[in-house]
Amino acid sequence: MSEYDLVVRGGNVTTASSQSVCDIGVKDGVVTAIGRSLGPGDREIDATGLLVLPGGVEAHCHIEQKSAFGLMTADDFESATISAAFGGNTTVIPFAAQHKGDSLRAVVEDYHARARPKAVIDYGYHLIVSDPTPEVLGQELPALIREGFTSFKVYMTYELLRLDDHQMLDVLATARRDGALVMVHAENYDMIRWITERLVNTGNTAPKFHAISHARVAESEATHRAIALSTLADTPMLIVHVSTEEGSAEIRRAQDAGLKIYGETCPQYLFLTVDDLDRDGMEGAKFCCSPPPRDADAQEALWRGIRNGTFQIVSSDHAPYSFDSNGKLYAGPNPPFTKIANGVPGIELRMPLLFSEGVVKGRIDIHKFVELTSTNAARLYGLFPRKGTIAVGTDADLVIWDPTLERVVRYADLHDRAGYSPYEGKHLTGWPVTVVNRGRVVVSDGELQVQAGSGQFLARDTSDFAKPLGQRLPEVDPARNFGADILPGDL
Amino acid sequence: MSEYDLVVRGGNVTTASSQSVCDIGVKDGVVTAIGRSLGPGDREIDATGLLVLPGGVEAHCHIEQKSAFGLMTADDFESATISAAFGGNTTVIPFAAQHKGDSLRAVVEDYHARARPKAVIDYGYHLIVSDPTPEVLGQELPALIREGFTSFKVYMTYELLRLDDHQMLDVLATARRDGALVMVHAENYDMIRWITERLVNTGNTAPKFHAISHARVAESEATHRAIALSTLADTPMLIVHVSTEEGSAEIRRAQDAGLKIYGETCPQYLFLTVDDLDRDGMEGAKFCCSPPPRDADAQEALWRGIRNGTFQIVSSDHAPYSFDSNGKLYAGPNPPFTKIANGVPGIELRMPLLFSEGVVKGRIDIHKFVELTSTNAARLYGLFPRKGTIAVGTDADLVIWDPTLERVVRYADLHDRAGYSPYEGKHLTGWPVTVVNRGRVVVSDGELQVQAGSGQFLARDTSDFAKPLGQRLPEVDPARNFGADILPGDL
Amino acid sequence: MSEYDLVVRGGNVTTASSQSVCDIGVKDGVVTAIGRSLGPGDREIDATGLLVLPGGVEAHCHIEQKSAFGLMTADDFESATISAAFGGNTTVIPFAAQHKGDSLRAVVEDYHARARPKAVIDYGYHLIVSDPTPEVLGQELPALIREGFTSFKVYMTYELLRLDDHQMLDVLATARRDGALVMVHAENYDMIRWITERLVNTGNTAPKFHAISHARVAESEATHRAIALSTLADTPMLIVHVSTEEGSAEIRRAQDAGLKIYGETCPQYLFLTVDDLDRDGMEGAKFCCSPPPRDADAQEALWRGIRNGTFQIVSSDHAPYSFDSNGKLYAGPNPPFTKIANGVPGIELRMPLLFSEGVVKGRIDIHKFVELTSTNAARLYGLFPRKGTIAVGTDADLVIWDPTLERVVRYADLHDRAGYSPYEGKHLTGWPVTVVNRGRVVVSDGELQVQAGSGQFLARDTSDFAKPLGQRLPEVDPARNFGADILPGDL
Amino acid sequence: MSEYDLVVRGGNVTTASSQSVCDIGVKDGVVTAIGRSLGPGDREIDATGLLVLPGGVEAHCHIEQKSAFGLMTADDFESATISAAFGGNTTVIPFAAQHKGDSLRAVVEDYHARARPKAVIDYGYHLIVSDPTPEVLGQELPALIREGFTSFKVYMTYELLRLDDHQMLDVLATARRDGALVMVHAENYDMIRWITERLVNTGNTAPKFHAISHARVAESEATHRAIALSTLADTPMLIVHVSTEEGSAEIRRAQDAGLKIYGETCPQYLFLTVDDLDRDGMEGAKFCCSPPPRDADAQEALWRGIRNGTFQIVSSDHAPYSFDSNGKLYAGPNPPFTKIANGVPGIELRMPLLFSEGVVKGRIDIHKFVELTSTNAARLYGLFPRKGTIAVGTDADLVIWDPTLERVVRYADLHDRAGYSPYEGKHLTGWPVTVVNRGRVVVSDGELQVQAGSGQFLARDTSDFAKPLGQRLPEVDPARNFGADILPGDL
Repeated sequence: MSEYDLVVRGGNVTTASSQSVCDIGVKDGVVTAIGRSLGPGDREIDATGLLVLPGGVEAHCHIEQKSAFGLMTADDFESATISAAFGGNTTVIPFAAQHKGDSLRAVVEDYHARARPKAVIDYGYHLIVSDPTPEVLGQELPALIREGFTSFKVYMTYELLRLDDHQMLDVLATARRDGALVMVHAENYDMIRWITERLVNTGNTAPKFHAISHARVAESEATHRAIALSTLADTPMLIVHVSTEEGSAEIRRAQDAGLKIYGETCPQYLFLTVDDLDRDGMEGAKFCCSPPPRDADAQEALWRGIRNGTFQIVSSDHAPYSFDSNGKLYAGPNPPFTKIANGVPGIELRMPLLFSEGVVKGRIDIHKFVELTSTNAARLYGLFPRKGTIAVGTDADLVIWDPTLERVVRYADLHDRAGYSPYEGKHLTGWPVTVVNRGRVVVSDGELQVQAGSGQFLARDTSDFAKPLGQRLPEVDPARNFGADILPGDL
Repeated sequence: MSEYDLVVRGGNVTTASSQSVCDIGVKDGVVTAIGRSLGPGDREIDATGLLVLPGGVEAHCHIEQKSAFGLMTADDFESATISAAFGGNTTVIPFAAQHKGDSLRAVVEDYHARARPKAVIDYGYHLIVSDPTPEVLGQELPALIREGFTSFKVYMTYELLRLDDHQMLDVLATARRDGALVMVHAENYDMIRWITERLVNTGNTAPKFHAISHARVAESEATHRAIALSTLADTPMLIVHVSTEEGSAEIRRAQDAGLKIYGETCPQYLFLTVDDLDRDGMEGAKFCCSPPPRDADAQEALWRGIRNGTFQIVSSDHAPYSFDSNGKLYAGPNPPFTKIANGVPGIELRMPLLFSEGVVKGRIDIHKFVELTSTNAARLYGLFPRKGTIAVGTDADLVIWDPTLERVVRYADLHDRAGYSPYEGKHLTGWPVTVVNRGRVVVSDGELQVQAGSGQFLARDTSDFAKPLGQRLPEVDPARNFGADILPGDL
Repeated sequence: MSEYDLVVRGGNVTTASSQSVCDIGVKDGVVTAIGRSLGPGDREIDATGLLVLPGGVEAHCHIEQKSAFGLMTADDFESATISAAFGGNTTVIPFAAQHKGDSLRAVVEDYHARARPKAVIDYGYHLIVSDPTPEVLGQELPALIREGFTSFKVYMTYELLRLDDHQMLDVLATARRDGALVMVHAENYDMIRWITERLVNTGNTAPKFHAISHARVAESEATHRAIALSTLADTPMLIVHVSTEEGSAEIRRAQDAGLKIYGETCPQYLFLTVDDLDRDGMEGAKFCCSPPPRDADAQEALWRGIRNGTFQIVSSDHAPYSFDSNGKLYAGPNPPFTKIANGVPGIELRMPLLFSEGVVKGRIDIHKFVELTSTNAARLYGLFPRKGTIAVGTDADLVIWDPTLERVVRYADLHDRAGYSPYEGKHLTGWPVTVVNRGRVVVSDGELQVQAGSGQFLARDTSDFAKPLGQRLPEVDPARNFGADILPGDL
Repeated sequence: MSEYDLVVRGGNVTTASSQSVCDIGVKDGVVTAIGRSLGPGDREIDATGLLVLPGGVEAHCHIEQKSAFGLMTADDFESATISAAFGGNTTVIPFAAQHKGDSLRAVVEDYHARARPKAVIDYGYHLIVSDPTPEVLGQELPALIREGFTSFKVYMTYELLRLDDHQMLDVLATARRDGALVMVHAENYDMIRWITERLVNTGNTAPKFHAISHARVAESEATHRAIALSTLADTPMLIVHVSTEEGSAEIRRAQDAGLKIYGETCPQYLFLTVDDLDRDGMEGAKFCCSPPPRDADAQEALWRGIRNGTFQIVSSDHAPYSFDSNGKLYAGPNPPFTKIANGVPGIELRMPLLFSEGVVKGRIDIHKFVELTSTNAARLYGLFPRKGTIAVGTDADLVIWDPTLERVVRYADLHDRAGYSPYEGKHLTGWPVTVVNRGRVVVSDGELQVQAGSGQFLARDTSDFAKPLGQRLPEVDPARNFGADILPGDL
């Protein structure tokens, strides 16, 4: 029997802070040796001339999730995790979504039951909290956090999901007390609703009006408000899927002031624009997501935010809907924009897009790429250092990347079930060729190599960026900022 | 018969942009001549060595206003306008306050019936819109605007008054279409409520906790949000009674960007602090108002905002409640802070405070004083040039001011019915000695000289600062800012 | 003999803070009455349907000024003041320019000798300080300030004029001690020189390269530095002829912080662009001035700065050079941009341009127009309230303006000696028709009505905006900002 | 013979982006294996319970450097590198300082001759450029850059070192063309000189006045100007030893705008204050450095800048002068502050101070510590990935750190020759116990284990953050920012 189950030989092993041509030895799913001329493994992979990177951690995706009104995403845990794996990921953290009236515990059990037999890579869940009852806040959440569900997502928009500011504060205070990280979908519900009514009343219902209804200021306003709530609750926060320069500026302003506010953006905001929603006929519906893609100036602003550290993470926000009556067009063949399922697929292309447009084009370096796609996700969500880097003792989650491989995006080559790709036809340089999760070769030679259900559930620790009650942020001086110097300690 | 009903002789006539030692001749309530050695008047006032200023326009005060739960202010239109007159004012613009379910038209008629027989100086009303039904927005407001009610106030907090963002947009769009100015009480309702619950639950109910519950961030958040709504609706807005540096900064940021956002602050934020709420026993209740006074740093920031033009106007926000069971302590002798009537009296001291602390201490010059207390109020609220300046043809609204007169504030010397003054004991230099409204000597020799009911109702024009539909703000580029370039014209 | 030497009847008399249809009576050069149906004057002007405004105060112009290398402006005091008068001005404040080695006293005497016999309207001088020797700082300046030369200009660029930062501080400290206002030409000399060398070395010498050499960042850098010097010296400062959004932003930032920094812009930055420098052949030379005109975005930013109060004043910076070997082309017919005389004429069009593009097009209102062209100039430079407004006792400096008169700019109609106008062909609405200076009708019926030498020298008071030593700016806390809390008092 | 020269066993191996308990195997000075239960090494170190970190890269220190007026630092390459090693460093990058008239080549040879026989750890030099002649810019620098001197430092202050803005641009253009990083000492020379003159003239010469003379605004002004120059030259820049919130804010503002501006701060600004300069008698002289320590608010601002990424690096700026006539007091026993040698020692305490106050007190985490003290220095200065991380193939530069070891700072325990420590008496938790450089155990058991001269010179690559000519920064749009769209390509 070999010393190693697997040896990856001669690759350019690159993490967020190192680069090294060497071998990696894996035993029992864990990296046990990094060296030169390691002894033989039961299985060997020649990575000469290739990059060996920490497996992608896709931390924002919707898998087998039913919307509040009953629509199911096109992907289940099998197709989504396969697609993720082909895109270089070894971990996904989709959502377990509570709807009004649901017990969070039951929701989690339900997702468990669906994921367990299907996932081909490792997974955990963020909890979507849409009904923060005393029971949820006082009992379910503390228990679930202890069990490893250490992040929640809340919505400031969507009729059936959104929390008001008071509920947001309740959730934030819970997160602070029990050590969880809160992710926020920040758009102003009333603004969107108000514009939408006027658009619909005037017959402006083509897909492009979806973008008009989600005004930029709706994002920046809600971002500012979320940050204010976070400041009052004295708790870190991640603003997800930022699409605008204005929203980015609010995050930056908070960071300038020393607040622990984090930011995420997504490929759809870096690579698509509002013009895509204005394609012929219903074609624009394929690009409808919330917030919507903006314009070239916004793209530049987001790249600037990536480079200067405003954004810690780039996620796919994979929300796949088939382009038919089971998905995008659930309401009929020519729906108004208010009846188009929201979301775009992208779990398989997040890393190739960012590599090709970011690293190859010189906008970011390879270390920043690893940070954005893997390390920071692991740190934000309590998986580090087990995930997010390559070191002895970490899970052997590796993606072997050919930095010079050129391919054109064709949906036929992808593995999700959305039925189309928003990036169809795009030429990309640099693709994953082999993907290893806990030592298991999940993808190689263009084929899936593992069985459904072979992925493992990940109970997660407290985020590196969310501290438990009692460790007040040193930057915040409530006395000065809020007249709150005599706040009772148990506020 | 003399050429003039009244001649004011030899005063230092000072407006926002001129200074001149001369005589002023008045006929039929109007200034008809400004010159030297004017012919005799039926009445003559020697103003030698004194300032002659445009009468104060007190544009933020609550008079004979019943709260949503039935509490009446201590002053009626008689006592309030007398107090205002003694403080150097010749015009007041209190509120006609709609409560849920009220017809605005009926509200206005009701206030008319109360004011007409009592007011001793000129007056108009802002409309408080708390129930923006289609009837109110579509019919009552347009008609009332045409009749001279060209400004509305809306609340973002207070259970029974507040509008949600969607309603705010409706009101703003109405203001834009019909040419009215919207005033906003900007505090985040949910934040205040959330903190309050925690304070009450922990037994922290002394008056000082009122200030804690109204966190600074509640003001700055709501200010930012109000500005965002104003930006979306493409309509000017005035943020009233700003108390914090943070709120002031949001206004300034909007002005930097070229938006037509205006700001008001009040004496209670320049001259009181949160420490006043912490006086012994229930004494602190006398200083409870919303937003509450803050600290010395906030005061400095507000002075800076006055000097650099962030604030256009200083108003009293006179909201007088007697310190007994008919007012502040309506809920009993030792109420929690949540059951203390909100508001402080101050209509008579606004100008003396600002003169003494501002002009005499060198923080502002006399022209800025006139601008803040009179000219800008008249311009903001559609009374200019009839009010707010001294020129031939303007109403003869004059306040003759002794810049060297020193007096200590004693409630016994004041004329409102609050029963106390928050500024008791303060030494002030510079007081009005004679007040003339439309040529009528209202106050002289320390005595009221006119009868109740002698003030006139003022139908007001469109604000100099609020333009009718069709004149989009040139600074706002909705296409760039909001992706709204293809917004339908009638949005 | 009539009571009045002159009566202007029935005009719409408009100041920075009033508007009134009335008569103005003038006696002995001073406004003595403002009223209705004033008694007869020896001379009467019917202003019915016209505006009557305070005469323009043109506070930035170069008249009969010899450059450091001997080139004389095209206008002498006669032609320049005639041109100014035809443009609605009743006061000019050009420069008395010291060159290295000059006694400032002698410079002033020299300008006096030239201006006295020629000026047709009132005038004073700012002192250009280019050689701040101990003699100049310690003796000449204090005496000249006392005599009414209460403002200096200093240059941060131009080989023969510029001061280094140490000299700037010396001048600022002198201004602070003796109560003068410092005006700054803020461009970075080394940056301009460095770019220029590269342009010349590569043969890029056409006029348009003048604009390239004066990079935007050269203006914003120097503006920031000037403000820093002003902050250290604890003295107000005016940044003149601001051309860029970046420079404007630096001024705004200082104002946000409460610093007494003022800003000026000019018609060439509002109405010309860098494209004008790129006209055929040497034609672009006509538009060469420093800083140069920029682009449409910069224009918008400057308008925003005018509206939101960043800029207090709009001046012409009239610097007329004939388009021949006595002026622009002094170095020969096809000079490199480094050998083109710098400056554009514009003293006669400042007010018509700003009225037509500002007031008529709705960018600013008429009160702001008066403020920018007259009132603030008078206040900044110690002429208020004698100049800058219309009130009893002020100089009878009136410009009667026809707001609907449309004319096309033709150099042939102008009165300066530059030989061309950068605004040739522009359609403008609103022109001055009669100009009165101290009661003398200077211009009417399109003709000059007075003799050369009839203008008067104005000894000026301390600027309303520059305070003498001992009145530290309350906004500046040197201890906090500069570690300077233990600075000796006589620093 | 063992497989490894050295094995470090069982430590908590921590880099900027990983953490792992494992063994490190070293052969021929290089890490050749990272694993569990590695085979035996010739030498073994048990690191159980200890941190194993990348060796510190001390990138800002003055060693055996003679000042422009002939004063030598107290440390030579032997004592300085020993002290550095005891403080956890394995690399130092001091300066090779050109004085006016020097050939840079000769300067480098001179430093080589001194360093080679003495250094105990690895080293390189930054070049101080004080005389950028055409020869230096055109020939010496390009050649030296090619030889591995890929960073320069320039001074904006100090009579004998400072460059004017034109020279700065020349140096920046050279850096851009040839791929070097420019470090800037940013203080305004004239401001400091001007204040100093006034202080000296008024007899205010005690050490504390050194801090007064180096006003905060002198730092922020020069920082802004340096950034403007960098922007014009389109070249990255590092602002060294930032001491103020204002300076930090300028850097942040540039980063917000997407500029490649980097920042460094030092222990003296985090742990000392201006009060230290006010200690009794000449004691304050021990704390005189430029810029000087500021106050507690500045310290907080710098910590905020460390946390939010404004600063990439914390260096010692070790500039050791003995407290006698050979150093600090070279001008006599009671010198005015202008005659005190500038600089503080600190090379040995940089890492312990930052660990104890940063990591132990919870201000930063251990990964940020590694980044600030090692990884980013290596990346900034072209040593990465050979230095700055721990990976197979990197130099075996390891510092074994006891995170719980508590010690009080005593100069007697340090190894530099300054004769005192500014941090005397400070209690610190967490100290290096063993230091390994290229596999050589340099320090262990409190003793130096190597001979003088055993350190190696490091020829450095281009900075990861400074790109060669032709790769314009994508963030900079010269057309928009500077009107420079038609700049010749070879500018």
